[in-house]
Amino acid sequence: MSTFGPRHLLGIEPLTRAEIETVLELSGRFLEINERPIKKVPTLRGKTVINLFLEPSTRTRTSFEIAAKRLSADAINISGSTSSTTKGETLLDTARNLDAMSPDVVVVRHAQAGAAEMLAGRLRAAVVNAGDGAHEHPTQGLLDILTIRRRLGRVEGLTVGLVGDIAHSRVARSNIHGLLKLGARVIVCGPPTLVPAPIERLGVEVAHRLDDILPRCDVVNVLRIQFERQRNGLFPSIHEYALLFGMDSARLSRAKPDVLLLAPGPINRGVEVTPEVADGPHSAILQQVSNGLAMRMAVLQLLCGRTGAEE
Amino acid sequence: MSTFGPRHLLGIEPLTRAEIETVLELSGRFLEINERPIKKVPTLRGKTVINLFLEPSTRTRTSFEIAAKRLSADAINISGSTSSTTKGETLLDTARNLDAMSPDVVVVRHAQAGAAEMLAGRLRAAVVNAGDGAHEHPTQGLLDILTIRRRLGRVEGLTVGLVGDIAHSRVARSNIHGLLKLGARVIVCGPPTLVPAPIERLGVEVAHRLDDILPRCDVVNVLRIQFERQRNGLFPSIHEYALLFGMDSARLSRAKPDVLLLAPGPINRGVEVTPEVADGPHSAILQQVSNGLAMRMAVLQLLCGRTGAEE
Amino acid sequence: MSTFGPRHLLGIEPLTRAEIETVLELSGRFLEINERPIKKVPTLRGKTVINLFLEPSTRTRTSFEIAAKRLSADAINISGSTSSTTKGETLLDTARNLDAMSPDVVVVRHAQAGAAEMLAGRLRAAVVNAGDGAHEHPTQGLLDILTIRRRLGRVEGLTVGLVGDIAHSRVARSNIHGLLKLGARVIVCGPPTLVPAPIERLGVEVAHRLDDILPRCDVVNVLRIQFERQRNGLFPSIHEYALLFGMDSARLSRAKPDVLLLAPGPINRGVEVTPEVADGPHSAILQQVSNGLAMRMAVLQLLCGRTGAEE
Repeated sequence: MSTFGPRHLLGIEPLTRAEIETVLELSGRFLEINERPIKKVPTLRGKTVINLFLEPSTRTRTSFEIAAKRLSADAINISGSTSSTTKGETLLDTARNLDAMSPDVVVVRHAQAGAAEMLAGRLRAAVVNAGDGAHEHPTQGLLDILTIRRRLGRVEGLTVGLVGDIAHSRVARSNIHGLLKLGARVIVCGPPTLVPAPIERLGVEVAHRLDDILPRCDVVNVLRIQFERQRNGLFPSIHEYALLFGMDSARLSRAKPDVLLLAPGPINRGVEVTPEVADGPHSAILQQVSNGLAMRMAVLQLLCGRTGAEE
Repeated sequence: MSTFGPRHLLGIEPLTRAEIETVLELSGRFLEINERPIKKVPTLRGKTVINLFLEPSTRTRTSFEIAAKRLSADAINISGSTSSTTKGETLLDTARNLDAMSPDVVVVRHAQAGAAEMLAGRLRAAVVNAGDGAHEHPTQGLLDILTIRRRLGRVEGLTVGLVGDIAHSRVARSNIHGLLKLGARVIVCGPPTLVPAPIERLGVEVAHRLDDILPRCDVVNVLRIQFERQRNGLFPSIHEYALLFGMDSARLSRAKPDVLLLAPGPINRGVEVTPEVADGPHSAILQQVSNGLAMRMAVLQLLCGRTGAEE
Repeated sequence: MSTFGPRHLLGIEPLTRAEIETVLELSGRFLEINERPIKKVPTLRGKTVINLFLEPSTRTRTSFEIAAKRLSADAINISGSTSSTTKGETLLDTARNLDAMSPDVVVVRHAQAGAAEMLAGRLRAAVVNAGDGAHEHPTQGLLDILTIRRRLGRVEGLTVGLVGDIAHSRVARSNIHGLLKLGARVIVCGPPTLVPAPIERLGVEVAHRLDDILPRCDVVNVLRIQFERQRNGLFPSIHEYALLFGMDSARLSRAKPDVLLLAPGPINRGVEVTPEVADGPHSAILQQVSNGLAMRMAVLQLLCGRTGAEE
């Protein structure tokens, strides 16, 4: 725990490589616990974790909730539709009110980039960013990296392709920061309307044709297409998108023989990925979920453990 | 536990009489625990129960949630409105994702018949059907049978009338299978538009006039009228329905003196049953709820205990 | 506990001064526990608390939920949108059904005055009123009083101004009853359309100009403006309301130097209170929340402890 400095998890960008490694190491322990008949440890008994989800989410909220409960913490869910934000209260007031009930961690998802960071300086609780606009979704990035490491044995030196809507994707941003810190090469690939040119400055390679880069990729991480973008005319049609960027068996056969396929989900079968590929041997989609749970347990313990140590 | 074979509870149809008896026996123990000042046992500590309710429900979801918590399991609720299914994900993908978080039991309610069974073959977790379309709602059937047995001392040899919308009722189907297996005689009774003729093949008697069969019934189980059916013109009017099939004091006085009245609820007072009858001495409506909780504790323990024993 | 007689908490009006004191005393113990690293006591292990919230609420529901969990009780949330009330079931039937699952406490919020009291006579569980129409919101009243006592050392002899929409406010009513019982003087102040004349009969002074009474107040409790009232034309404009009744720095400078500012929230910044005042040294807004949690723990323990003692 000595190598985990931050009081909050706001993004992968502010983390050091050693801090990322600490989370990944600790995740391994919880993966093992989650396979036991008794999947529970008393580590965070008497701690309170609030899940403040002001955008809809099933899997991420559920993952944090189970993570908290398996650590014996009390988990409290607050979702957008039931929140006082409907009564005109600001996010900061909502969060400060919750903070006055002395939670140890507030996990926040919000449509605005910067929401988690804004809270972090103003609450006593540790803040975990569970997705803030198009900024970062650090636990998704960490679970993707954990999955690469567990499947391929390393991250350093690998070439990872991030495919799809890079412009609007907090998942892409968290992956980029984490992968580069751990020494991977990152290629972002999508239609020009969905890949902003300035993203090169982060240190990634930009491509627009998946077939050009696929043979070089050790990992392909297929981002979810959000159909509302299509309505805005950012790509010609779902069908054309699937044709150019969807992972199907034919395309997969032109990739490296042991290529690893990731997808943050929920997936649109037949769009970003065909059913054969999603359920095939290259896919790590369900392992990502298992890894995500273990990694969130690690994050909660690191942040709460720290709180405890200060007291 | 040796007499409870199934890994899942998908319906009463696939259960043996011995398996039904096992659930009923164990329920008695939990009924007693639920009357104690400390209503909690450590049996399922470290187990995770996910309630995946993709149709609205208060009482069934609450019953499963309390059942899990009183057994010291962690209970996670996922409801339709917050589910990823709104993002176009298939039920199977949603469930597989949850399964990757290693729950021990997934309790599923879904509008489509066969939903629970489809999942059962594809998840590591045990699956409990909490209602799938018009197919089965096995825990409702089991609690109805438990209530009959506790009130009347036996099931075998009794005559049970199921009254109302048989065509669309998973509760009717689960009752029929369970009651016949335990040796009761079953009469289904409702307007012809709501009682499909082929249901006779299940081994029940079909009737269309409640007053004709009432004197022979030891138990009358009054199904809920779903008003949306009425809009489809399946019966002339609520008033006429109440007149012909509603249980009121006058009708009750023509039944056996110790007739038992069940209603799965939520009840429409003044339609299927008048307030005097619902709250009167023949009614077991609230006992059904208490029995249902105890019986769901029994089901969760039998399914999780099995999981545990395998490990 | 010997001084706490009631089986239910339906309002402050039915409480004796000694009973109020008992709650306030016990709250102090839980305030201390909520500052510990391990914020949990085993007091209510094996007890079940159901939060039946048939009106939207974030903070009150969350407060009761955390209170229950920190006492080691099982907490079950039921909200209006998922409730069977949408299926036409009466409140009483919904509550009786829940009661049949043997909860120890049912916390109820409902749009109708008298809802909690109606249930109290008909359930086995203890009932806590978490707000019933414009009648009472006793835990809000108690937390306001607790906050006054902890900040100013006493309640007796103080002058408390309740400002805003008195007519529609259950918070005002609970404050009035509690403050008068503890020997404070209460002035209610708002536009004539929002202050019913007969309220004087409760023993309060009525005023319509905040600037007239402010210099005499030791405490100002600023009620939330509900904008839907404004649509009904009960005051000229939000701007004019803020001008006449909003607490800003200029107005605060004309109050007593150590005046205490309370607001039940969620607050409309810039309407009832400006940001400088809400976040300034006179404000106890966040302490109210912390005190509310501790006080709700006290209430749950007093009511459940009693239940336990009877058994």
